[in-house]
Amino acid sequence: MKKQGRRVEHIEVRGDMTVDELVREFGKSGVFSAGRVAEACDIFYEMVSHKGVTKYLGLAGALVPCGMRQIITDLIQDRMVDVLVTTGANMVHDMIEAFGAAHYKGSATVDDSELCRLKIDRIYDVFLHEKDFIKYDELFVKMLEDIPSRQMSIREFLYEIGKRIEDPNSILRTAAEKKVPIFCPAVADSAIGLDVWRFMSKHNPNLFVDAFADLNDFMNIVQKAKRNGAILLGGGVPKNFILQAMITVKRGGYDYAVQITMDRPEPGGLSGATLEEAKSWGKVKGGARAVQVIGDASVIFPLMVAAVRERLAKAKR
Amino acid sequence: MKKQGRRVEHIEVRGDMTVDELVREFGKSGVFSAGRVAEACDIFYEMVSHKGVTKYLGLAGALVPCGMRQIITDLIQDRMVDVLVTTGANMVHDMIEAFGAAHYKGSATVDDSELCRLKIDRIYDVFLHEKDFIKYDELFVKMLEDIPSRQMSIREFLYEIGKRIEDPNSILRTAAEKKVPIFCPAVADSAIGLDVWRFMSKHNPNLFVDAFADLNDFMNIVQKAKRNGAILLGGGVPKNFILQAMITVKRGGYDYAVQITMDRPEPGGLSGATLEEAKSWGKVKGGARAVQVIGDASVIFPLMVAAVRERLAKAKR
Amino acid sequence: MKKQGRRVEHIEVRGDMTVDELVREFGKSGVFSAGRVAEACDIFYEMVSHKGVTKYLGLAGALVPCGMRQIITDLIQDRMVDVLVTTGANMVHDMIEAFGAAHYKGSATVDDSELCRLKIDRIYDVFLHEKDFIKYDELFVKMLEDIPSRQMSIREFLYEIGKRIEDPNSILRTAAEKKVPIFCPAVADSAIGLDVWRFMSKHNPNLFVDAFADLNDFMNIVQKAKRNGAILLGGGVPKNFILQAMITVKRGGYDYAVQITMDRPEPGGLSGATLEEAKSWGKVKGGARAVQVIGDASVIFPLMVAAVRERLAKAKR
Amino acid sequence: MKKQGRRVEHIEVRGDMTVDELVREFGKSGVFSAGRVAEACDIFYEMVSHKGVTKYLGLAGALVPCGMRQIITDLIQDRMVDVLVTTGANMVHDMIEAFGAAHYKGSATVDDSELCRLKIDRIYDVFLHEKDFIKYDELFVKMLEDIPSRQMSIREFLYEIGKRIEDPNSILRTAAEKKVPIFCPAVADSAIGLDVWRFMSKHNPNLFVDAFADLNDFMNIVQKAKRNGAILLGGGVPKNFILQAMITVKRGGYDYAVQITMDRPEPGGLSGATLEEAKSWGKVKGGARAVQVIGDASVIFPLMVAAVRERLAKAKR
Repeated sequence: MKKQGRRVEHIEVRGDMTVDELVREFGKSGVFSAGRVAEACDIFYEMVSHKGVTKYLGLAGALVPCGMRQIITDLIQDRMVDVLVTTGANMVHDMIEAFGAAHYKGSATVDDSELCRLKIDRIYDVFLHEKDFIKYDELFVKMLEDIPSRQMSIREFLYEIGKRIEDPNSILRTAAEKKVPIFCPAVADSAIGLDVWRFMSKHNPNLFVDAFADLNDFMNIVQKAKRNGAILLGGGVPKNFILQAMITVKRGGYDYAVQITMDRPEPGGLSGATLEEAKSWGKVKGGARAVQVIGDASVIFPLMVAAVRERLAKAKR
Repeated sequence: MKKQGRRVEHIEVRGDMTVDELVREFGKSGVFSAGRVAEACDIFYEMVSHKGVTKYLGLAGALVPCGMRQIITDLIQDRMVDVLVTTGANMVHDMIEAFGAAHYKGSATVDDSELCRLKIDRIYDVFLHEKDFIKYDELFVKMLEDIPSRQMSIREFLYEIGKRIEDPNSILRTAAEKKVPIFCPAVADSAIGLDVWRFMSKHNPNLFVDAFADLNDFMNIVQKAKRNGAILLGGGVPKNFILQAMITVKRGGYDYAVQITMDRPEPGGLSGATLEEAKSWGKVKGGARAVQVIGDASVIFPLMVAAVRERLAKAKR
Repeated sequence: MKKQGRRVEHIEVRGDMTVDELVREFGKSGVFSAGRVAEACDIFYEMVSHKGVTKYLGLAGALVPCGMRQIITDLIQDRMVDVLVTTGANMVHDMIEAFGAAHYKGSATVDDSELCRLKIDRIYDVFLHEKDFIKYDELFVKMLEDIPSRQMSIREFLYEIGKRIEDPNSILRTAAEKKVPIFCPAVADSAIGLDVWRFMSKHNPNLFVDAFADLNDFMNIVQKAKRNGAILLGGGVPKNFILQAMITVKRGGYDYAVQITMDRPEPGGLSGATLEEAKSWGKVKGGARAVQVIGDASVIFPLMVAAVRERLAKAKR
Repeated sequence: MKKQGRRVEHIEVRGDMTVDELVREFGKSGVFSAGRVAEACDIFYEMVSHKGVTKYLGLAGALVPCGMRQIITDLIQDRMVDVLVTTGANMVHDMIEAFGAAHYKGSATVDDSELCRLKIDRIYDVFLHEKDFIKYDELFVKMLEDIPSRQMSIREFLYEIGKRIEDPNSILRTAAEKKVPIFCPAVADSAIGLDVWRFMSKHNPNLFVDAFADLNDFMNIVQKAKRNGAILLGGGVPKNFILQAMITVKRGGYDYAVQITMDRPEPGGLSGATLEEAKSWGKVKGGARAVQVIGDASVIFPLMVAAVRERLAKAKR
């Protein structure tokens, strides 16, 4: 055991700091969550500034409703992300905004039965009007009519959707444009699923989305990459899907991994499992740079992206 | 606002208590987590003892690896559960045991790179030998060869698997026997997915599992039920899939709902969202009996099942 | 590293189980929180059934308001606890009940400004009427007049209080009767503190309670004990006070330690620190039986006490 | 109920942002933790920029070991804090550094029994060498010899210590210089307590620190203040001590309150209780600006201080 690490230097804060200057102060301390956030920024910067790293972003949790849509779109636009793995809900909420509706600041301490009567759906302290949801349902079902009724993978299906969206701030559209594949293993578990079900009951089309076909595409990406780096916001299916692929790769494992989550290891589920645990499976390399930040993605991820973009801007000069 | 609830009576503990006697003491207190556990038992008992309640069980988290397999199998056997919604992993671990292998008591504070070299996969403090995983892969792929290569839903696919398992303690087999449907929206996100991918790459069969087809079956069950009750262990896809179906039902919403989880509402994700939030969406009825227990399912769920079985046994006499 | 622990056996639940029978099923699994609860019961049973173990109970959190008062009183009565370390608030709420008032079942989702107007104080989902608090203030200040105005330690001060309480279910009274010392380092941080302040401002007495004097008594107990065992409900001052004493003992450290808490290690505070961390300081022995259960004390502790009392009852026969 | 709050605008991140520019983006979203952090900054800025607000800072958790010492010292130096309430441990670690020793970056996944043999004390991922602790003990006991042996309050006792410290970065010294009182109700629950005990056993002096005397000073401050604002890092005794004082004030309650913590309300303890709950007691005013951020203080607090200092610097120009 190393008896002596370096000294914990105390964080200093001034009134004219850039975000990365603050993050570097976190790095001076190097311990507790501050140290972990600094390490996460270092890892993400290495992922985007080194050539030959394929970069995966996992999205679990209500990231679009809470205001993270633009950050994700911009990362795809700037190709700081090569592969997206997401819950269905984040793509639904991307479309809700693409179709002209919005999310609203509400409150988490309300009478939900009363909200139900007012036709407002609640996502923690975000409100969504059911009329906006209905508008989305209509426009999305109309879009489905336009999609060729053939056998396809979930990735292809989401690409067909993305191509048909006009809003330049849309994650789905930007990913389609930039050829960033979107994987969404549990797509049926979202309003997309409900709408496809409605559509198929009514129109009985031959649209046939294969539950397993994506794995082939995903494995191809993972296996061809020189180096792999994963940024995981939350846990859930996106975390597991991104990590599990490495089991199929000989001497595989992510070279870089960052998870930002409020989940913890003690309940034993994969969402809160440490990235160390992932090393036992070969999902993350023994020698990988990996860090898990126990914190809220809505704060920590914008902070990370700002610090990394600042470094990139400075490196360019 | 009700100024005065009933008095908090103090829990009394003796040396000869049955589990339900302890739970009834929790009910005397009625507050904090103790009160919530007592309420959860009352709700589950009402669900299983009243006629006409369709009972859904959502499984997220490593419930089979931590020793909950028999409890789940027995609930299906005794038809205390009518519909199962699960992560893929729990079905994989059910098969690993069905094929003769086991999970082992390990430790959560180990050198995971060393574990990797020893070919041991870690799930918190559970160890799994890779040789057992390989054995599972082989036997499962062999089983796949036997499954008719046709288009089917995920539910049908899992039923085909369940029919072919011999172990009477298997969740998959018992569900197949008892005609309890198993839904698994993210089935590709598990070793089942990896094995189907391996199988299809090699054998190029015409097995087509439809990502959306299950929704039809699930909606039929939900819409035909007189009353609906959900027991949710953890959150994730199973929680969302069970709840979202109600959005399609006019004046719908679960009549009973219990969630046992360590997730919390503040990060904003669906896993930790309160059951109150679900009322705003119409997923849970405004007047439903619903309670969320912040606790570990490996302790709280066996306690609940023991208390409810004790009440059922007493009611029979 | 031990490659192979014993097999995880699946928990079986019947309709006629005693609490300890359920706990023994948790032990068969041996992993996740179920395994930890089983281990906690084994440790507590060993502490109370072996001779020569001095048993410390740390109380942090609103344990009396949530219905745990009788359990604690009974443990003192049966001398299953030798030393109590507590927050001030638990002793205040013990007195509130001793003086004839009660806590009431309320709700955690209420308008707190409205509660304030109704003169109801909220403790999560427990309500307390301000009139009962005022009654306590009056009776406690009257008691203070009776206490000799001399220099004393906090322990002596609480003993003087306990002697003057008549309610046989009172923790303070039972501890005074059974000569179980109560330590409360932050006694000023409670209504006891506020009332002593009120009393001293008005009456200007010579009551002097020494902030440090208790350490002498506590060190004497710790240093004379053959073996030491700590049960920690929550963290806070009681956990730290119980553990820190061992730093003064040569080759010291608790031989047994159980903590039940919802706090976690990642924020770095002592409340959620692992019992492993305590080993580095010599607060817990390297070879100690120690387990931390991440769970709610209002459920886990009554369960533990019921299981241990069942074993004691069986051992007597 | 307000049906419609303002629209959730999406956070935008560039490569040249100051910390406050990022925080203002959080404010544009306004929801989830991002919104809460923005609100916390607004409140803290209002507290320090408006005249007549008495500002309390509560310190619980290992804030000095993790690198927050300088931030706290600077806040006192710039009188952005008027009153400090702390655990004993933070003052101990302040002295350890004042006496020339340091904390070191270690690891949270180590063999703690081995650390014990190496005479290293662990605080999550911070290491502290026992030789540095012994040096502190010696120098502190020497300091005690110099402190007049009379009756005093804990606040006076800490002031006597602060006066004797030479390190200009010390919290204790800076507070003594700037006449910022330090309250530490559980001072005995720390190495300060252990050292006073050692000192008194050996030297039998007449140093007599009164457990209750501080309340008088604290109440005077609270009652004389025009407006009161509390910043609470963690919960514990500092949170309760700061809040409880308001119970004694007619129509009292904090006008501003911010808590940064990883504790949650569900276990029912005061540490994780919402600031809403505090309104029922009159500890926080019904109309107060109050926000609780579920996050790690080592990241969130430096971020807040940087944003607020930036606003102050801009306001000056």
